[in-house]
Amino acid sequence: MFDIIIIGGGPAGLTAALYALRNDKKVLILEKECVGGQIAKSPKVENYPSQKSISGSELADQMFEQVVALGCEFELETATVIKKINNIFEVTTDFSTYQAKSVIIATGAKPRTLGLENEDKFLGKGLYYCAICDGPFYAGKEVTLIGDANSALQYALTLSSYCSKVHVFTLFDKFFGEKVLQEKVLATDNIVIQHNCKAVKLIGNESLEGIVFQNKEGVVFEHKTQALFVAIGQVPDNKIFEGLSPLDESGYLISDERCISKTNGLYVAGDCRTKEIRQVTTAISDGAVSATRACKYIDTQINN
Amino acid sequence: MFDIIIIGGGPAGLTAALYALRNDKKVLILEKECVGGQIAKSPKVENYPSQKSISGSELADQMFEQVVALGCEFELETATVIKKINNIFEVTTDFSTYQAKSVIIATGAKPRTLGLENEDKFLGKGLYYCAICDGPFYAGKEVTLIGDANSALQYALTLSSYCSKVHVFTLFDKFFGEKVLQEKVLATDNIVIQHNCKAVKLIGNESLEGIVFQNKEGVVFEHKTQALFVAIGQVPDNKIFEGLSPLDESGYLISDERCISKTNGLYVAGDCRTKEIRQVTTAISDGAVSATRACKYIDTQINN
Repeated sequence: MFDIIIIGGGPAGLTAALYALRNDKKVLILEKECVGGQIAKSPKVENYPSQKSISGSELADQMFEQVVALGCEFELETATVIKKINNIFEVTTDFSTYQAKSVIIATGAKPRTLGLENEDKFLGKGLYYCAICDGPFYAGKEVTLIGDANSALQYALTLSSYCSKVHVFTLFDKFFGEKVLQEKVLATDNIVIQHNCKAVKLIGNESLEGIVFQNKEGVVFEHKTQALFVAIGQVPDNKIFEGLSPLDESGYLISDERCISKTNGLYVAGDCRTKEIRQVTTAISDGAVSATRACKYIDTQINN
Repeated sequence: MFDIIIIGGGPAGLTAALYALRNDKKVLILEKECVGGQIAKSPKVENYPSQKSISGSELADQMFEQVVALGCEFELETATVIKKINNIFEVTTDFSTYQAKSVIIATGAKPRTLGLENEDKFLGKGLYYCAICDGPFYAGKEVTLIGDANSALQYALTLSSYCSKVHVFTLFDKFFGEKVLQEKVLATDNIVIQHNCKAVKLIGNESLEGIVFQNKEGVVFEHKTQALFVAIGQVPDNKIFEGLSPLDESGYLISDERCISKTNGLYVAGDCRTKEIRQVTTAISDGAVSATRACKYIDTQINN
């Protein structure tokens, strides 16, 4: 029996483990893919306070080593079922079943991809999903953005403030975000918009060199670019938790900064919960908060 | 004219600067005491993800160097007056007056002290204000705690789970925190409570060795201890901002994880705002969120 099972080994989960272990709790992390979650795929991280420039995988490794040194248990398994029976949580994975007094869900969210060949290959080499994180590497240069809703509009404005030109491509004939954002984008000189364009191919050798689009007339054309930001949404993976705590319409676990779920003893941390700004910094905050609450719950059976 | 003035140079303010500078904004930090805020006074930090063990001042220095390298301006001045006139913020300090399009308040909070001689000298050398942060350094040992409300009760329970014994002293004849917490504390074998005791002196050479108490009968006695946790509240310093955004009854700026204040273009980040868990991790989250919002506000004049 564990004190706390943490589902997800990204920054939120690893920070939750750090706080729980320092409170002398027996902790198991279940991670289905790789330590570090999304950040591990980022070749260069320059917005994590205290680390001037570090690869995402190195940052994840440092966080992982920190919790392993404190005795964290870790299994590369996928949680498939979670139940609460007589105040004990039972988490079933593809290999085993574990029990704990408390569970922290920190399953993250993945950026929605274009679904093109080589998209993985160019990730971090000209293709990015977060303009806040990676836009600054292209200050003074021309960049390209695909997307049509609020995030895309905000990214376009952000990029336009320090990039020489921002080429925005949308799939349909219009934007879908806030009116004021749309107006600001339309009024910004160095944002160039092309509607009705579907990306069909990524071009490049070592790094991205261009994108092939097809417009609604069926015309295929190549757009040369060294930096593409894809902002077409994010996909959480919370379906199995729905019975214990409700999801919002986009599939995120509904919670606030207290990281409390609808089930006593169950906490939600990081990108998997409803929040506006998904960054490593906001994820580790949730890790600390959720673990502090889980420890209090275990020590006192008080949830709030 | 600056894009953003950040009042306070602790982890929240430094992270806000990091995010704003990476968005190509012109940033000034005003700090009245020392870079790093409270964390700079902590001799050993082991709960900051990715840094296994680091002194608080070194952690603060790393964060500071990161923003200075990006062109952050920094003045060791105390903000005394802040006004918003025609959409421009004017911040007056003890030395000068500065203008900016947006302001982030990150003034932190200080632990309430006992007011005893040598309290500063023993800080980090046997005397601590945060059991979550520093308690684990005394696992398996006897510790002492002064306080009578929720934080003190929670700290007592936390410490009792991994320390051999927790001596709790209160100033009055009872606890003031949640009933369930009180009951749990009273039911915990290795928590020893002494009411009606006022700390009058700290004893020790290089580090803390004991505390002199006086009870309500006037009897003075010495309690030997190597670790004292003082949990008698925190003191924010937000009085000058009250006109722009309301404070709660304890003096914290009322906000939630969005870091929005009652004034458009003014944001609040870190320990100075209403929140439950005040840690470096939760402060840097606010830094990222407030700066992202401030940048959006400057680029679009949209506050929410």
